[in-house]
Amino acid sequence: MRRVERATLKEVAKRAGVHPATASRALNAATRSLVNAETAERVDQAAHQLGYTPNPIARSLKTSRSASIGLLLPDITNPLFPPIVRGIEDVLGTVGYNAWIVNTDNDPDRESAAIESFRGRSVEGFVVATARLEHPLLQELAATGTPMVLVNRRVANPSIPSVTPDDAAGVAMAMRHLHDLGHREIVHLAGPQDLSTGVVRRQAFRQALEDLRLPAGPGRVVGCTTWSEAAGAEAMEKLIASGVPYTAVLAGNDLIALGCYDVLRAQALTCPADVSVVGFNDTPLMHRVDPPLTSVRVPHYEIGAEAARLLLEVLGDAARHPRSLLLPLTLSVRGSTGPPPA
Amino acid sequence: MRRVERATLKEVAKRAGVHPATASRALNAATRSLVNAETAERVDQAAHQLGYTPNPIARSLKTSRSASIGLLLPDITNPLFPPIVRGIEDVLGTVGYNAWIVNTDNDPDRESAAIESFRGRSVEGFVVATARLEHPLLQELAATGTPMVLVNRRVANPSIPSVTPDDAAGVAMAMRHLHDLGHREIVHLAGPQDLSTGVVRRQAFRQALEDLRLPAGPGRVVGCTTWSEAAGAEAMEKLIASGVPYTAVLAGNDLIALGCYDVLRAQALTCPADVSVVGFNDTPLMHRVDPPLTSVRVPHYEIGAEAARLLLEVLGDAARHPRSLLLPLTLSVRGSTGPPPA
Repeated sequence: MRRVERATLKEVAKRAGVHPATASRALNAATRSLVNAETAERVDQAAHQLGYTPNPIARSLKTSRSASIGLLLPDITNPLFPPIVRGIEDVLGTVGYNAWIVNTDNDPDRESAAIESFRGRSVEGFVVATARLEHPLLQELAATGTPMVLVNRRVANPSIPSVTPDDAAGVAMAMRHLHDLGHREIVHLAGPQDLSTGVVRRQAFRQALEDLRLPAGPGRVVGCTTWSEAAGAEAMEKLIASGVPYTAVLAGNDLIALGCYDVLRAQALTCPADVSVVGFNDTPLMHRVDPPLTSVRVPHYEIGAEAARLLLEVLGDAARHPRSLLLPLTLSVRGSTGPPPA
Repeated sequence: MRRVERATLKEVAKRAGVHPATASRALNAATRSLVNAETAERVDQAAHQLGYTPNPIARSLKTSRSASIGLLLPDITNPLFPPIVRGIEDVLGTVGYNAWIVNTDNDPDRESAAIESFRGRSVEGFVVATARLEHPLLQELAATGTPMVLVNRRVANPSIPSVTPDDAAGVAMAMRHLHDLGHREIVHLAGPQDLSTGVVRRQAFRQALEDLRLPAGPGRVVGCTTWSEAAGAEAMEKLIASGVPYTAVLAGNDLIALGCYDVLRAQALTCPADVSVVGFNDTPLMHRVDPPLTSVRVPHYEIGAEAARLLLEVLGDAARHPRSLLLPLTLSVRGSTGPPPA
């Protein structure tokens, strides 16, 4: 950065004809209302004329506030996360906060190093998108009172605030849609079972089979080890090899659904004439794949924005009882679902 | 964060039996080699036993190094940017640096506010993905010696270091592909002309028409006001209305190509039987759209990684002559291009 002499707060105060403490209060959004409006305006002008920039590093040492938070992501290149990040950043920006972002690839060592690094940078709290159901590191952080909000996924401990999609309701909606089209033989390619998203969607699938009085043998769920096209394809091949009858597939997420597409095509099966497929998340471009994918729409931007609001609330009032939000979902019906073959 | 007493550097030094300055040198990667290896190890153990965490905020006040950079993006939800961010973050992470990210939506006021905010946070430099050809703010920053690297786009002033795709070579490659398929009547839906990417690709298109001795009237380029599906559709409609003959479309980027798809479909034209379409960037899922899009592949992750390396070089040696990198591109040939109609 430019190595020029900064104007000091004292110089600004002198030019405005006020005490430095008054100038400081006027220049800080949190305390500005304590200062006479005309005086505050005069301080602004003096600061502007002198090219004064407050030094937040010095300020954070004094007040222990860094106006920064740490954001832990599995991988920003997964299309789920950019809108979550954007939502967080938009809300933080309105109050002068910024987020440090790190990609952990779900590796506990990298996560642990990132948390240490962020603590060294005196972040005030964390937004965490990397939660696993059993997650000792997050449990430990939470136990020490570190302000934290989980996004998208939760840990088993319900006392850590979280903002997640209402996955169970989303699955019920998708199953109702398939049932309405006439499907009775439905299978589920489930996501990883060490993550809340994988478990909740699988349980909701089982619940829907029961509610809709559909066949529910154990072969109706095939697990995927990751949320990827490759894992989806592998699970679909297993399903076909198992001989379980099916006319519709509920995929754990959109990438798993796309892997399923590949196997159907390789087997000369047509979607939706032979098999209907439903995805989950409705990530960008799902209306453009072939065939356009019916998918449970998750409002990722809003999830990020709500998580940032929740964290700011916690930072503003540490005594506030922890809350978690479940955001409602909708179903985007497209060309990958239709009536079962006659 | 946890409000517990931190162990101080002095306490660590005392337990290790060394002078605090020695302990400080041992705990700082940049100066550790100045300390006897055995002593350094003893300091590490003492730091570990006391749960000592260095306080980078205090350190940055002393040394004027924040180990942070500011990253200006148009919008992280544009699929171009996540891999660039990931590349930047991966390289910065290896040396303990972090990036502050802000989305400007290409709004000069938000950009200016973000730069001020980052300067207030004492960032050491900037990676900028929001460059316009005429960009007084960036010119001014550069003139004051602020370390800065442009990614993806450049300003008119070539003295600011940048890492960009070799767009001209990419366009030449795409045009050669269309020519080899037999196309002679080719048109270009050009991106915004206040951005280097828009201008370089348009100029390269003109150059290719000349090199390949193809018809080159003024109606062969239709401009798009933004890099979006809507702008691509609008330009395609204009092109069709103009009556210029064409059998192939070179789109300024993938989103413009997708907008072009929509208009072709609405006009009952089949791609590629009636019209071939080429995109630019090869963003994720372009192999899955209908038809799969032939596109010039840009290595966005590598662009981000190289930009971070370049910035770290500049930070390490301010006197080093500014360099710019052009990264080579490849062509992903898919179902959207074929021979022209007979």
